[in-house]
Amino acid sequence: MHAAVSDDEQARFGVEGAWFHAHRHRVRWSETDMFGHANHAAYLTWFEDARNAYLEALGLTITATTPGPVLAQVEVHYLKPLGHNADILVTARTVSLRTTSFTMDYAVWGGGCAARGGARCVLMINATGARIALPETLRRAFIDRDGAQVDPPATVSG
Amino acid sequence: MHAAVSDDEQARFGVEGAWFHAHRHRVRWSETDMFGHANHAAYLTWFEDARNAYLEALGLTITATTPGPVLAQVEVHYLKPLGHNADILVTARTVSLRTTSFTMDYAVWGGGCAARGGARCVLMINATGARIALPETLRRAFIDRDGAQVDPPATVSG
Amino acid sequence: MHAAVSDDEQARFGVEGAWFHAHRHRVRWSETDMFGHANHAAYLTWFEDARNAYLEALGLTITATTPGPVLAQVEVHYLKPLGHNADILVTARTVSLRTTSFTMDYAVWGGGCAARGGARCVLMINATGARIALPETLRRAFIDRDGAQVDPPATVSG
Amino acid sequence: MHAAVSDDEQARFGVEGAWFHAHRHRVRWSETDMFGHANHAAYLTWFEDARNAYLEALGLTITATTPGPVLAQVEVHYLKPLGHNADILVTARTVSLRTTSFTMDYAVWGGGCAARGGARCVLMINATGARIALPETLRRAFIDRDGAQVDPPATVSG
Repeated sequence: MHAAVSDDEQARFGVEGAWFHAHRHRVRWSETDMFGHANHAAYLTWFEDARNAYLEALGLTITATTPGPVLAQVEVHYLKPLGHNADILVTARTVSLRTTSFTMDYAVWGGGCAARGGARCVLMINATGARIALPETLRRAFIDRDGAQVDPPATVSG
Repeated sequence: MHAAVSDDEQARFGVEGAWFHAHRHRVRWSETDMFGHANHAAYLTWFEDARNAYLEALGLTITATTPGPVLAQVEVHYLKPLGHNADILVTARTVSLRTTSFTMDYAVWGGGCAARGGARCVLMINATGARIALPETLRRAFIDRDGAQVDPPATVSG
Repeated sequence: MHAAVSDDEQARFGVEGAWFHAHRHRVRWSETDMFGHANHAAYLTWFEDARNAYLEALGLTITATTPGPVLAQVEVHYLKPLGHNADILVTARTVSLRTTSFTMDYAVWGGGCAARGGARCVLMINATGARIALPETLRRAFIDRDGAQVDPPATVSG
Repeated sequence: MHAAVSDDEQARFGVEGAWFHAHRHRVRWSETDMFGHANHAAYLTWFEDARNAYLEALGLTITATTPGPVLAQVEVHYLKPLGHNADILVTARTVSLRTTSFTMDYAVWGGGCAARGGARCVLMINATGARIALPETLRRAFIDRDGAQVDPPATVSG
């Protein structure tokens, strides 16, 4: 986990675009399936690891009782398979936000782009389900560092 | 695993819409996380179980060496959390197909709809990466039973 | 999940010995690894599913806040590999107990015995780590139904 | 992954005893369960990661078609729970060997010892199930570096 992609990583993993957060991972034996590749569900867990590290780096402590990111939607586009021991870089950034929710982009890099993904997250007190306004420090980091766009409140799920 | 949703299941799980394939599951302790709910990645594995059972029911044997479904894209919309031991019904159907690929819809039911999802699958010989035309029996079942729509060949990914 | 092994299951899965609790499972694609077999860690989760169902059948509700079984030790002996879709029966029984702990045996059956395992569990309030005496109904079921032996209090871990 | 435990790691994680292989890990959100701790099955996967890295560091390439370690037995002793984000060191060493099998010890460290484990592994061509004699380089590393003991051939399982 670290705050940005180094020049060395950019070249080594074939990273394209602007990412200020990256997470290293090596494909585990337990993540492979009978096809000899990382199972498609493993990617969601890589995104989760990257997301949690990213949010913690921005000051959000993730525990069972404090407001945390609850997923409303996820998607993954698989571009090429990844084998056991593949050395990968998972990048994360926030692309847009509303009062209590934000949308992230992810990518998996290793010899170029292996997968792209996205998630819409709602900040919520898990025990009660109450939605919480994004803390100002998080909003500022999303906007100033990642260049996230502020969307108008949604009529339904803002 | 079974071929259709019974009237009893329709009422019990609050299923809406036409689904000809359903898969029962009970949320496992190992699928829960610190928030006390099924982790979001578990849903992809439920869809995978339903998809494999569905395809096998339609005559496709899924092994490491025969043509099998490789995922190009997945998405999940989470509508309400599911706790440990939640008794759920996962439904699956094919909504459209091309020469070598098909798109499926999934839903998770338990006291109404808990999640919806989708996947675009390519039929492929895993060892070589060669795309395989959907067998006629599979095409017919997709079209005749699920009412799937035949899309024109994609310019990019057929 | 059910209270006992039927004669049909006894024959079909090749079950040997006296087991009063059995849990059906089909090896999931996500449980296989590059060797084409169920990954060794999946067995612990099958035992966990069987253990939770067994304890709930005996009246113990397993939640995040009530006394639940915390593992002190587990072991698995792998006797033959299990492939994707293998239809298996996981059996569970308690072999001995103390004031706050109990020891269980497990076996995985499918064309004979595929694996054997064991676990030593402590009944604990998870939030505080306080050990709780086994409820009398649980003790009686362990002893009367499973034939579990009552061990003297351990000098160390009771 | 690295070849030995540094003095810094020894102090930081409270490592005791002689270990020549260590593997860093951070407890993932997906590894926690409703009790707020790493699920007991996750430890087997940490041992697997450490074992594979250890064997690869000693020259064994682990693929689907070359001789690889197949587990005959595993055990884990859980000494204290580990929470989300816990920074841990997993250590591995071989304690004894026979012609085609070897026995390893593992430990999980973080503020002292959190768990101990063991595994008996058989070197096998997975596709055929044929047992393979341990390569001389592996035997020498087990004996010379880890101080593993050479056991007489087993009457049953060698």
